[in-house]
Amino acid sequence: MPFITLTTDFGTRQGSHTVLHGAIYGIAPDAVITDLSHEVKPQDIREANFVVNNSVFFFPPGTVHVIVVDPGVGTDRRPIAGRIGEHYFVAPDNGVLSACLARAEAEGWSTEFVALDRPEYWLPNVTMTFHGRDLFSPVGAHLAAGVPLVDLGTPIDDLITIPLWGAERHADGSVEGEIIYIDDFGNAICSILPEEIAHLPVPDGVAVEVCGARIEGMVSTFGDSEYDSDTLIALWDSSGYMLVSENNGTGGKIIQPKPGDRVVVRPLP
Amino acid sequence: MPFITLTTDFGTRQGSHTVLHGAIYGIAPDAVITDLSHEVKPQDIREANFVVNNSVFFFPPGTVHVIVVDPGVGTDRRPIAGRIGEHYFVAPDNGVLSACLARAEAEGWSTEFVALDRPEYWLPNVTMTFHGRDLFSPVGAHLAAGVPLVDLGTPIDDLITIPLWGAERHADGSVEGEIIYIDDFGNAICSILPEEIAHLPVPDGVAVEVCGARIEGMVSTFGDSEYDSDTLIALWDSSGYMLVSENNGTGGKIIQPKPGDRVVVRPLP
Amino acid sequence: MPFITLTTDFGTRQGSHTVLHGAIYGIAPDAVITDLSHEVKPQDIREANFVVNNSVFFFPPGTVHVIVVDPGVGTDRRPIAGRIGEHYFVAPDNGVLSACLARAEAEGWSTEFVALDRPEYWLPNVTMTFHGRDLFSPVGAHLAAGVPLVDLGTPIDDLITIPLWGAERHADGSVEGEIIYIDDFGNAICSILPEEIAHLPVPDGVAVEVCGARIEGMVSTFGDSEYDSDTLIALWDSSGYMLVSENNGTGGKIIQPKPGDRVVVRPLP
Repeated sequence: MPFITLTTDFGTRQGSHTVLHGAIYGIAPDAVITDLSHEVKPQDIREANFVVNNSVFFFPPGTVHVIVVDPGVGTDRRPIAGRIGEHYFVAPDNGVLSACLARAEAEGWSTEFVALDRPEYWLPNVTMTFHGRDLFSPVGAHLAAGVPLVDLGTPIDDLITIPLWGAERHADGSVEGEIIYIDDFGNAICSILPEEIAHLPVPDGVAVEVCGARIEGMVSTFGDSEYDSDTLIALWDSSGYMLVSENNGTGGKIIQPKPGDRVVVRPLP
Repeated sequence: MPFITLTTDFGTRQGSHTVLHGAIYGIAPDAVITDLSHEVKPQDIREANFVVNNSVFFFPPGTVHVIVVDPGVGTDRRPIAGRIGEHYFVAPDNGVLSACLARAEAEGWSTEFVALDRPEYWLPNVTMTFHGRDLFSPVGAHLAAGVPLVDLGTPIDDLITIPLWGAERHADGSVEGEIIYIDDFGNAICSILPEEIAHLPVPDGVAVEVCGARIEGMVSTFGDSEYDSDTLIALWDSSGYMLVSENNGTGGKIIQPKPGDRVVVRPLP
Repeated sequence: MPFITLTTDFGTRQGSHTVLHGAIYGIAPDAVITDLSHEVKPQDIREANFVVNNSVFFFPPGTVHVIVVDPGVGTDRRPIAGRIGEHYFVAPDNGVLSACLARAEAEGWSTEFVALDRPEYWLPNVTMTFHGRDLFSPVGAHLAAGVPLVDLGTPIDDLITIPLWGAERHADGSVEGEIIYIDDFGNAICSILPEEIAHLPVPDGVAVEVCGARIEGMVSTFGDSEYDSDTLIALWDSSGYMLVSENNGTGGKIIQPKPGDRVVVRPLP
């Protein structure tokens, strides 16, 4: 079963994302396509990094992940394809794979990439504005149908990466990170992982400071605080990161967090 | 063909719902997955009941329906799986199946359920906050792949159910119900079924009172009133329930209905 | 592989669109279903024309396209099915296929249609309000499963079509069209094709006038203007039409275009 996921910033209302489905089925009729997300903030490569890295590695080995968040379409940015561990990726070379590549390095996974320069694997007429349909999807379909990566382009090892979120430990032991993403519940996902605050008295002995608010102690699960009680809580998200939540399903009543806002975790006095 | 449907309150923007797809394909690569809805109001078990019951029984017999609307994740609420008639369900034991169970009773369908307590059918590491990925989806995939229900847990017969909507007949013959759901067109779906007002002179001789407005007579179809004419109409919805509509595609101009508002049907004088 | 696409105005929140999936799988368990769009503006046949024509012909030959934008459901409007070139369609006879039929005429594709009048290919109980589930999806599934078109109904050649967008050339050489659609990025898609302004000094020597604004010259790609710089640009969209964009991902800051607004392209003095 050749699995393919699609991540774009097209939205779903106009149906343009399904042109990718059509282009894929024409080449790989057995493909099983999952729409990972088509609601990445337009042209937001950083957000695309978060969304992609959050889900792709839960798919079976061999899955092909096609990513079309591509502000540089029609310019000379390179189209690329490659393997990260046991997963395949097709995307523009604009840093959209930075988080997955960082993960590969942390996990010790091997990687290999090619610059896509073999038009025989693209649609016959490549437009200036829709490489998702004309180039990325066909290449993804050929990969899923069994074409070896090396046949699709010329090997490269100079992929563009962009600086991502992280956490910094200060002299007083406090750890400073930032908000990565506001999810559909209004929760703020923060760039702090358990190992980065393992030296602090987690969960009860820490304070989390964000957007002028201060949360004393972390909880284990949403069920530990009363739903819709407008209480700010901090807990470990299923993505692995720290999550700050109003636990009322919408957020925005107590604090108005946005990506890039600072988050500090420090020991309670 | 093992069919699986997914109903959650995750939203679709972040892509977390596709982690369920990935987890399922890893266990049941032949599964055919339908995203029933990922836009249930967060943690709204009542709305989930309406959405699930509205669609699941139109799928082929043997379909596995995975439902993750789970305010109690990480607490001691039980994860369950079971059969209602010819359909399988995997969900938290929090009342989310109440409407389907009521339907089974009305239709005379048999049911059987187990409490999920066999970790060998879950992902290796179960987190506190993402049982959808770690537990419910894997169990759904194993069911779809042919594992017998009884192998997945311990039989139970004390499922939690919650009070749902209904209709009450008053001494004067009038029938009182409530609004269950506001759909994407702004229409109000009301808890009144045809058999509950069969003693009244339907369709022309009844008045429907809701949110301070009064509708005289019911129509057969949207096409019976002029579109976008800001006229309030009452008709039978495809879900079986009474529907009150402004028939302008958005609603909210004439009345502002919300779930729980009372609806009364009475004979015209 | 029998491919089926679904285009409706149901929205996705309530899950009603998945009832179509269930009805299809019950008849054609091997069907591969793509949700083309369920977010057509309610009952907007004109918008449905744009959305459908924009994507359907990128699917493989033989794909069945089911379209349920159906303000006349329950009235005597005819349900129809047919072939346009190598693609199959099932829809109400309300003009929703006008753009695809115009394309067939322009491309010289053959067409054949039937009025659906064989209830043995429908669900047993057809309601007044949900022909998508009861009639259009089952017929689409039977087509996908190999039932010949002629078995499904009585041949007709008097399909209803509606006037669509176009472009008009004035005596002074200027070309006037209209806005067809505002996409998810806030971009305005205009009813002007390259061949209609080929007599003008495109790209640098033309002005595009829309909503009181004037754009001098067209660009080749989004990457040719700085993103989020609040500059109005005109370029050729991947749909083939002219696109006017603020290139900031949301639109609405400089002009507030809406479908039907006039667009004029004229030579720069």
